[in-house]
Amino acid sequence: MLTRDGLNRDLLRAEYAVRGAIPTRALELEAQGRKIIYCNIGNPLAFPAQRPLSFLRQILCLVEYPALLDEPAAAKLFPVDVVERARAILERHPPGTGAYTQSAGIPFIRQAVADFIAKRDGIPADKDHIILTDGASKGVEAAVVALLRDHSDGILIPIPQYPLYSAEIALHGGKAVGYHLDEAHHWQLREETLVSSLARARSAGIRPVAIVVINPGNPTGAVLTRENIAMVVRFARANGLAVLADEVYQENVYASGSRFHSFAKVMHEMGETSVSLFSFHSVSKGFLGECGHRGGYVEFRNMPDDVLAELVKLQSISRCAGAVGQIAVYVMVAPPQPGQPSYETYVAEREGVLRELKAKAEILSRGINAIPGMALESPQGALYGFVRFELPPEPGVDPGAMAEDERRDYEARRDSAYCLALLEETGICVVPGSGFGQEPGTLHFRTTFLPSRDEIEALVARLKTFHEHYVEALSGNGKAAALRR
Amino acid sequence: MLTRDGLNRDLLRAEYAVRGAIPTRALELEAQGRKIIYCNIGNPLAFPAQRPLSFLRQILCLVEYPALLDEPAAAKLFPVDVVERARAILERHPPGTGAYTQSAGIPFIRQAVADFIAKRDGIPADKDHIILTDGASKGVEAAVVALLRDHSDGILIPIPQYPLYSAEIALHGGKAVGYHLDEAHHWQLREETLVSSLARARSAGIRPVAIVVINPGNPTGAVLTRENIAMVVRFARANGLAVLADEVYQENVYASGSRFHSFAKVMHEMGETSVSLFSFHSVSKGFLGECGHRGGYVEFRNMPDDVLAELVKLQSISRCAGAVGQIAVYVMVAPPQPGQPSYETYVAEREGVLRELKAKAEILSRGINAIPGMALESPQGALYGFVRFELPPEPGVDPGAMAEDERRDYEARRDSAYCLALLEETGICVVPGSGFGQEPGTLHFRTTFLPSRDEIEALVARLKTFHEHYVEALSGNGKAAALRR
Repeated sequence: MLTRDGLNRDLLRAEYAVRGAIPTRALELEAQGRKIIYCNIGNPLAFPAQRPLSFLRQILCLVEYPALLDEPAAAKLFPVDVVERARAILERHPPGTGAYTQSAGIPFIRQAVADFIAKRDGIPADKDHIILTDGASKGVEAAVVALLRDHSDGILIPIPQYPLYSAEIALHGGKAVGYHLDEAHHWQLREETLVSSLARARSAGIRPVAIVVINPGNPTGAVLTRENIAMVVRFARANGLAVLADEVYQENVYASGSRFHSFAKVMHEMGETSVSLFSFHSVSKGFLGECGHRGGYVEFRNMPDDVLAELVKLQSISRCAGAVGQIAVYVMVAPPQPGQPSYETYVAEREGVLRELKAKAEILSRGINAIPGMALESPQGALYGFVRFELPPEPGVDPGAMAEDERRDYEARRDSAYCLALLEETGICVVPGSGFGQEPGTLHFRTTFLPSRDEIEALVARLKTFHEHYVEALSGNGKAAALRR
Repeated sequence: MLTRDGLNRDLLRAEYAVRGAIPTRALELEAQGRKIIYCNIGNPLAFPAQRPLSFLRQILCLVEYPALLDEPAAAKLFPVDVVERARAILERHPPGTGAYTQSAGIPFIRQAVADFIAKRDGIPADKDHIILTDGASKGVEAAVVALLRDHSDGILIPIPQYPLYSAEIALHGGKAVGYHLDEAHHWQLREETLVSSLARARSAGIRPVAIVVINPGNPTGAVLTRENIAMVVRFARANGLAVLADEVYQENVYASGSRFHSFAKVMHEMGETSVSLFSFHSVSKGFLGECGHRGGYVEFRNMPDDVLAELVKLQSISRCAGAVGQIAVYVMVAPPQPGQPSYETYVAEREGVLRELKAKAEILSRGINAIPGMALESPQGALYGFVRFELPPEPGVDPGAMAEDERRDYEARRDSAYCLALLEETGICVVPGSGFGQEPGTLHFRTTFLPSRDEIEALVARLKTFHEHYVEALSGNGKAAALRR
């Protein structure tokens, strides 16, 4: 029989905290009848607070069952432009949702993605440099698989990072090279940190081949400035790195004065023609939140045809992305236009989702900042707050005297214990900062702001009580207090 | 900029002929306005000859747009049991199609899969030993990733095989160890061939960890006997191999006297408790043919909990399978029951699809066997014929005197050139036998029998003319004849 010791060691090494030990414990508690508030994962439509956009779902409904298009009743049940759009999809792609598509995805949808990028950024875009994927994750996986040649190849990732990156890099036998984001300056990237991380990796025998940038940031919620992006492009060029630009939160920008700048646009404006770029987008975030539909795309720039051919071949081994997800991508990039019957509803629903997210980001940060020993800058974008919190030192323990690995493990035990206790006592499920990485000497957890406004208010209140008790239990008369609870 | 030489060498090595050079050329010809008959891929709903089953599509339509359930008109548009089923799905899984699910898949659907296996085979089945996947392919990929530890690990695969296996094994850095199927005996497995393949691999320093069996066979169309399966199980036990049982064609059995036996059932009846089993199923084949929906599952047997936990973790790194595909799996394993309003239509549609496939398998094999120099046993199952054909020897070339690799390359050039010429002259797109592997000294191509009966008749007629001319061109007065065409 297979044993764990007989498995791929890279698999054993890979970790994905967003669905790790604490969420697993949450499922157990839920099975016992406990009410759990899942703030561990950016899964908007798991909450009644956010509803799917009607236009997308009406189209998916009709393309799944085209017989409905011929029913006279359908004209009463669906707006005219929805019916027309569904018909147009099936005319341009007669197999509809039932058949494998071309490996890279349905051609007219790749063209629509290219048109979307061209319009968004005012730059040229080519449908043959786009592959439709099962969510952005599968595009990320493809990039990691293609780029890593052996165990000495490395990819630079932000700290804190979205652990998809560290998991995929570990799984495919590479080295993750962390670079710290600057919490004191809106979590932007710092050039000197990139330079020193790269140098440290090289001196450890690692050959960095690419850099991951997440903008807007996960878990940080930061929106990168244009200057910050240009700095990364220069750094990538100077060091022969490809860029993996995770831009799935591009519609989730809340802070006034912040704006999303794509790597494609900035590179085009810089006249950059040597840095290879993979940029990822998805139907899972933004205002659609359609995680279950697994739709996404990756666009390639500055990539020779023979490399593109290998990436298409890689996709062909998985056949193709799901057809329904591809159609969802199409609707995302080609929404209803002014004057069409669905337009006003679409805009109202879209703005409703984005307004709520912005309001909830503010409620969360205001509430958190009112808790002594806790801090959160209001997220500029994305769906997360990366909350910093402080715990009293443990008597007789001096983290400053520990070796780097030892200290990281110690702090991971502390934030994990905290998040587990939070779950057990309050039913709130968040992810420890150590699952994303954090500066030595700091503790964090990541929470989404996807529950309703009222639920976030209640969550903050419960968090405050919990935190006070937890800190009290750890300090002076702590043990006794902990036992009393 | 990235270069092909800078890519993962395992990716460069991986090949997937079903979507390889010849289908790529077919796309080019189609773009130029040529009519192509795509017989290269088992993609049933790409052909007007097969239509999706109404019950499945009606349910997917409603779960995509649940607002329709509240419309009085819906009661007129959908059978009562469809409406009830859609409501029940949304009650048991309120986020519906829009949210990520648990990593392993929606729990009630995993339970339904367990119930399906238990009923099909009369054996116990456990929902916690089931993971829902994006088609069977992703389950196969997970098994390959988990099992291969380094470049010296190998997996036994049939020759001819479905090239997903060789591609995934190459991509994840393992060695494919071929064992030849016995064309003279309905493409069954032969114990002495397994033993000698294993011995040869070991003497070459390869450590075999698993054996792949495809039943019903792709590309062979063979249905394995119970005895043949039991032999494989004994062989796996004796040699410490896990079994990967690709059972996606389990509903596609046409030959009278043939029956599908699952590995799970045979192992259970043998009291086998030490051989680890991965078995794969899918909504893409059978009578649903829903390739575009990417729904499938993998069931694990004889697998310790800590190994299962690693497989669930691996799935968690990709989040989860698409929710729509998961619901399609649910409908596959829990079809309408006698007495329910949809039952008769469902059975009529199902039997219609299977009857056509059986008839077309017979038309294909009868037609092929009437072509001199071509042979095809009537496929017992699946969706393919693996057609054997003969070409006259080339003057001055003696394949028998070549080294094994040299001969394989020579024969691959011959069958590829043949299939390419067939495509260019007739628009028929099939896959050369070398893409699947074949006995030295033989030539094959794989074709589906998915076009309509009339189209298959026409295809066979065109193939006959093409083959005669091609053979004539290669023989005596051949060059002149080739130039005349």
